[in-house]
Amino acid sequence: MHSDPQLRTWRAFLRAHSRVTDLLEAELQAEKGLSLSWYDVLVQLEEAEGHRLRMTGLAANVLLSKSGLTRLVDRMCEAGLVSREADEDDRRGRWVCLTGAGEERLRDAAVTHLRGVRRHFTSLLTAEAAATMAAALEAVAESAERVLKDGGRA
Amino acid sequence: MHSDPQLRTWRAFLRAHSRVTDLLEAELQAEKGLSLSWYDVLVQLEEAEGHRLRMTGLAANVLLSKSGLTRLVDRMCEAGLVSREADEDDRRGRWVCLTGAGEERLRDAAVTHLRGVRRHFTSLLTAEAAATMAAALEAVAESAERVLKDGGRA
Repeated sequence: MHSDPQLRTWRAFLRAHSRVTDLLEAELQAEKGLSLSWYDVLVQLEEAEGHRLRMTGLAANVLLSKSGLTRLVDRMCEAGLVSREADEDDRRGRWVCLTGAGEERLRDAAVTHLRGVRRHFTSLLTAEAAATMAAALEAVAESAERVLKDGGRA
Repeated sequence: MHSDPQLRTWRAFLRAHSRVTDLLEAELQAEKGLSLSWYDVLVQLEEAEGHRLRMTGLAANVLLSKSGLTRLVDRMCEAGLVSREADEDDRRGRWVCLTGAGEERLRDAAVTHLRGVRRHFTSLLTAEAAATMAAALEAVAESAERVLKDGGRA
């Protein structure tokens, strides 16, 4: 059942994702001592309004390991790359905030990371394949986000 | 730097992967009480020669979480879905083997999983986009596998 030709694209998708993220992780660790999951959290915070997110927002936005995110943020706090701040309007609410050190670490790591993305992914695609994939995968992601949000099934 | 248009395909790729695997995980858990990581291990063993792999082989083949794989296999052993067997030729070598119960569990879960892959991924792609993506992503995966194997950088 797993050699079904209909599954070829799905399996290529999973395999490419697994291998390329392994490679980017290895390069980022070797050159910058940073894991790809940490990088992912730093990027999501950097792109968020006010450079901060609630834990639920962070969990919804990260693209890699969601499991163990609380402990991951704990360790990033200890390393000074993010901080936890009380919400001024909601006493029980807390924010995860990007610190100056986190921003600097992200900027430094981005050089290695983006070179890897280019080398191991972007540069291997023709412009046409890249455009086809971007459109198709955005539609796939949007559909999945709608289903996840409805909490039901399509 | 993260809104670089060159990165559009990469980001769509990460986002689609994250959202679709979240959805497949939720459906598999809800319907079959199985995690996608367990399913992944069962598939890799089912496809391996003799339905068994060494831990290093399993780590190289799984497509999802590689971190915590030893503990994951421990829990799957306790659940009776895999077993650890001594190597007849290499005293220190051990195999992770698919059990009959594991095979049955995989067969049962595959119905849910493959329906989800079709519904949330395959059916959203035109035949042309699917073929373009399969070829492009296989090339990406093969390139990354070569670099990982050389232990260096491209």
